[in-house]
Amino acid sequence: MDTLNIFADVVMDAAVLQSLKNGIAPHKLILPQKVAASVLAKSESDPALQDADIVFGQPDAQALAAATHVRWAHLSSAGYTRYDTPEFRRKAVERGLILTNSSSVYDEPCAEHVFAFMLANARQLPVALKTQCANSSAAWAQLRNGCSLLREQRVVILGYGAIASCLIELLRPFRMQIVALRRMPKGNEAVPIVTLNQLPEYLAQADHVIDILPENAGSIHFASAKLFAMMKPGATFYNIGRGATVDQTALLSALKTGHLSAAWLDVTTPEPLPADHPLLAAPNCFITPHIAGGHHNEAQTLVDHFLDNFRRFVGNEPLRDRVI
Amino acid sequence: MDTLNIFADVVMDAAVLQSLKNGIAPHKLILPQKVAASVLAKSESDPALQDADIVFGQPDAQALAAATHVRWAHLSSAGYTRYDTPEFRRKAVERGLILTNSSSVYDEPCAEHVFAFMLANARQLPVALKTQCANSSAAWAQLRNGCSLLREQRVVILGYGAIASCLIELLRPFRMQIVALRRMPKGNEAVPIVTLNQLPEYLAQADHVIDILPENAGSIHFASAKLFAMMKPGATFYNIGRGATVDQTALLSALKTGHLSAAWLDVTTPEPLPADHPLLAAPNCFITPHIAGGHHNEAQTLVDHFLDNFRRFVGNEPLRDRVI
Repeated sequence: MDTLNIFADVVMDAAVLQSLKNGIAPHKLILPQKVAASVLAKSESDPALQDADIVFGQPDAQALAAATHVRWAHLSSAGYTRYDTPEFRRKAVERGLILTNSSSVYDEPCAEHVFAFMLANARQLPVALKTQCANSSAAWAQLRNGCSLLREQRVVILGYGAIASCLIELLRPFRMQIVALRRMPKGNEAVPIVTLNQLPEYLAQADHVIDILPENAGSIHFASAKLFAMMKPGATFYNIGRGATVDQTALLSALKTGHLSAAWLDVTTPEPLPADHPLLAAPNCFITPHIAGGHHNEAQTLVDHFLDNFRRFVGNEPLRDRVI
Repeated sequence: MDTLNIFADVVMDAAVLQSLKNGIAPHKLILPQKVAASVLAKSESDPALQDADIVFGQPDAQALAAATHVRWAHLSSAGYTRYDTPEFRRKAVERGLILTNSSSVYDEPCAEHVFAFMLANARQLPVALKTQCANSSAAWAQLRNGCSLLREQRVVILGYGAIASCLIELLRPFRMQIVALRRMPKGNEAVPIVTLNQLPEYLAQADHVIDILPENAGSIHFASAKLFAMMKPGATFYNIGRGATVDQTALLSALKTGHLSAAWLDVTTPEPLPADHPLLAAPNCFITPHIAGGHHNEAQTLVDHFLDNFRRFVGNEPLRDRVI
């Protein structure tokens, strides 16, 4: 095989960079003139992209589509909104460009993050960690009685992919009643898949509605006033997908009326919310700043995952986490 | 069978009280003159105790020992410190008094509570819920990198009983490496039981040390300066057992030096801590006010559990959650 040019635009320290170099040798690593700010930030267009056979990072979608030499692009994120358009898909298919993402890197942290939200909510941690109420006091009795158990509660997951699959595995001992909505069911899902038509009846019974939808033309404001109205009074809404999938005005209203008991969001529009955004002051709205995928040695995990796919690519084996 | 007198001193609303009356009929319910303040509060001594065959609540240990008519006492708590003395045990055994507790009522909420602590700690929720740092900022990168995964981490559980058993079941999909310390191993434990002599080597490797010890003469300040010093630097300590099992001065010191990365406590000495107690201002010390066992309809669950045991008692079957 000829020497391959791998253009990698990922934030790495010296040790991780060295492991990437070692892993692809004797193939050639090309670094950008200006490194990306993070695994989520879109790279600036870089002339070196034109010479690459393989791209690893967050290449500009237009530049990638135009870089006809590139045969495979491996995204350093689980999200792939920038590439999830009919035009990009068409161009990629036409010239045989393979697109993979890093969902295997982020499925577990994201699943643990939303699980942390669910348990923190059930055990009322935001309130309980602030109060020092006395045993047997009225406030204490109310707090204890407000705690709930996940065991056997009902869950609707919006968006069945790697994160949902991992979450379902982690939740298994709780024997919850879980269904999921999936754009294109594959028949191998771990829980019953419901259709859009069936969704209302499940929303009406669910204690937890978990949004893991990717952002694309069909998912913008999927979590709408109508969806919130269909949810069971007192239910909790979670979003670890993309902020744009939620109509935040409708969410605010559902929290203010008390129809929803709480919302836990790792993603918002915009990120971060401005300091005077009403969701920051909404009752029982709990927000983390888009960190669900974070974990120790994230860059190393990303590189290891890329290298695993690189070995498959070189060996003509099917790649993991293929998107296109 | 003659009519049994059941003395019940448990906080109940009218519906729960009615279900208790229905459940024991045609046997007779005796209520105290002054109802206990909560499931944890010791009852005042009540003359009616003398006429009881069965007691349900938190009877005064001395009064219970003296109430020679009582054949079975069912505690409305999982803890049974007040009765866990050689004198009480001797007196109970001598006259054939059976003591059961409500650990089956509290094992699941307590297990979910410490699980919530573990995930909130791993996902850095106390910090993450307060910050609105921007994607790609230095603070954001630090927060993401500070997040960790429970998957495959190491756990030492101090005190193997119903709560530990439930927690181990709930944690199973995380494939953690768990060992436990148990006063009297029974051979049916779900994880390896370590001896006191073996404890140091496991403490030195554990990411999480979970104290679920009951309070008794042998467990006071079991979590000592020596124990904390044996723990791995950066590990996290949890206590959902009893406050007295922890040397709080030693814990404060281990948090201040940074030897422990965090402590999550549902129990303290005293409860609540006074407002100026140094643990309340200690770095990464997170405290909930003894609510781990709380859940919706707690009184009903307690009564249902008692009634299940009552049917067994009347039918001469072995009782659940027997302590003595």
